[in-house]
Amino acid sequence: LIAKDNLISVAVDLMGGDNAPREILLGALSAAKNGVSLLLCGDKSIIQALLDECCPEWSTLSITLIDAPDRIKMEDEPVNAVMHGKNSSLVRAVQLVAQGRAQAIVSAGNSGALLVASTLYLGRVPGVLRPAIGGFLPGITGSAFCIDLGANVDCKVDYLEQFAYMGHLYVRTVCNVAQPRIGLISNGHEAYKGSALVKRLYKLLEGSGLCFVGNVEARDIFDDAADVLVCDGFVGNVMLKAAQGTVRTMLRLLEMEGKRSIVSRLVLGLSRPIVKKIKEKMDYARSGGALLLGVQHPVIVMHGSSRADAVVQAINFAVLVVHDQRVSQFNQMLAHFLASCKKDNVQTGLDHESELMV
Amino acid sequence: LIAKDNLISVAVDLMGGDNAPREILLGALSAAKNGVSLLLCGDKSIIQALLDECCPEWSTLSITLIDAPDRIKMEDEPVNAVMHGKNSSLVRAVQLVAQGRAQAIVSAGNSGALLVASTLYLGRVPGVLRPAIGGFLPGITGSAFCIDLGANVDCKVDYLEQFAYMGHLYVRTVCNVAQPRIGLISNGHEAYKGSALVKRLYKLLEGSGLCFVGNVEARDIFDDAADVLVCDGFVGNVMLKAAQGTVRTMLRLLEMEGKRSIVSRLVLGLSRPIVKKIKEKMDYARSGGALLLGVQHPVIVMHGSSRADAVVQAINFAVLVVHDQRVSQFNQMLAHFLASCKKDNVQTGLDHESELMV
Repeated sequence: LIAKDNLISVAVDLMGGDNAPREILLGALSAAKNGVSLLLCGDKSIIQALLDECCPEWSTLSITLIDAPDRIKMEDEPVNAVMHGKNSSLVRAVQLVAQGRAQAIVSAGNSGALLVASTLYLGRVPGVLRPAIGGFLPGITGSAFCIDLGANVDCKVDYLEQFAYMGHLYVRTVCNVAQPRIGLISNGHEAYKGSALVKRLYKLLEGSGLCFVGNVEARDIFDDAADVLVCDGFVGNVMLKAAQGTVRTMLRLLEMEGKRSIVSRLVLGLSRPIVKKIKEKMDYARSGGALLLGVQHPVIVMHGSSRADAVVQAINFAVLVVHDQRVSQFNQMLAHFLASCKKDNVQTGLDHESELMV
Repeated sequence: LIAKDNLISVAVDLMGGDNAPREILLGALSAAKNGVSLLLCGDKSIIQALLDECCPEWSTLSITLIDAPDRIKMEDEPVNAVMHGKNSSLVRAVQLVAQGRAQAIVSAGNSGALLVASTLYLGRVPGVLRPAIGGFLPGITGSAFCIDLGANVDCKVDYLEQFAYMGHLYVRTVCNVAQPRIGLISNGHEAYKGSALVKRLYKLLEGSGLCFVGNVEARDIFDDAADVLVCDGFVGNVMLKAAQGTVRTMLRLLEMEGKRSIVSRLVLGLSRPIVKKIKEKMDYARSGGALLLGVQHPVIVMHGSSRADAVVQAINFAVLVVHDQRVSQFNQMLAHFLASCKKDNVQTGLDHESELMV
């Protein structure tokens, strides 16, 4: 239904990610078959050949090819790559949104380069110090929104303070939670725990007017310990990837144990539907990507390892985000809120408490 | 066999940890029944009553009660707690080793306080800047030794460089690996990835003479990406706990999915032996504790949430460590190595390459 909203076009970076272009294209094709209008950025000759191979009737779909012969690789240094990559699929995809030809970008490419290109071509929301990647972590009872999942590896305390406000406003906008509980990822739940940076942030958040619930251990991130989890991009990345690695390892162990005997082979066969459900629940690669918050338009950051089904989900997520105008609403609130902060003083909290309640 | 080595006594902090004193005592009793000689530190009247309740014949075991009526709590600030906790079970356990009455300490208590007390009463190995917690992460093909798992949340680059050397020497001593592969936990395997601190460390390790394999993503820590994983204590703690939380969440999901229907209930029942094996493999709480490296005697750091079976394993590990003299051998090599480093220059690598080969 939403997908058929023919005013929405999504720009897809076809050449970014470990499985590009084939898996990205296969995902894009599925989304296009569901009626999504796409601008596919990549080397035109390669993409055309692949399209002809995978879906000979592709010209009947709402697909436009944007020739972008260059490719930013995963190992390229971001700033350099963007500066010298004006004809890359990643930069072209971002430019399409800047030009108003598309309303959102989906990329599984170099996330540092995506951050740089988005900041450069789309611009930050006024007052934002650093855009950050935010995404929901799966949980049994609830999902926590974690910010930053990897955009900013070196953070000053006021970047992190802003991430907390961004998380607060995003969860309020999207989840209709009046007072999202803000937790701080630390090496223990006790108030005295944390790096020097985390301890300073703890103090700021205590006086922020946010519903601050204190430190959260990484062990409890799936247990509804908070609605928003704040951390720097280095810690967020390590936490997310440790969880991914653990899921992968446990599924492999299950597979291995299941092969030990005829009985266990049988049991494993019978348990497949159960294992499949758990896998789906915990598989971040399928969860459709995270948002780059703090830039002027929707940017969906996918895992580098994304496959076709994750791409479909990310594109659907992009359409949803454009359709429900959550990013534009969020950006408006964020700009308004930041303008109301007299940020010359770190003790901003009590002055703009009323702002947060709006 | 080893356990009956009656020259070895282990000091146990009975009052430390979330499940103290009962679970710690139950674990200690099992170990004592296997012939280990123990010095149990805690409030004598409480412990005696518990002993009489749990094991009326306890006086036939090689158990000595050390009265330490005070208790350092998990939420206490470490330095203060140690300064004012001379009669605490934790400090008394450390002192017993300093006095030569025991050869190793086992504690599930406040790990910050354990670090402070160990540094204060046992002393650092000469040249060591900061003691660090090292432990093996379970893996399918191999186990990586991760250092630091939580002792030092704020690290200078030369602390981390030393952790790499400590990991190198420990794995060489214990695992008989001539050239352990040293990996650096980062937010991507690419060389340019990392926080400012990690990037500086990367450069140092490249010129270190160690077998440096570059950055390792947290996703790959169970996949034999390196023999030694280096990170600061904040990141190590978050990584380890994210993995623990994921294991716990997946097992819960399995339990929940298994209850959805009679068929899945049956399948889950049949899968129990398989699940049990995976649980054992991935359950860090059972894995017997990690070592505080860089102090003069063996200190076994357990998870705060440890239960009796983990305590047994930690005590057995303590006995093994004393018996095979790995800590004294390691300390000797470390002191020798550090003495040979002219540490006024960060480019220490090539000068002492030969040292590392000894």
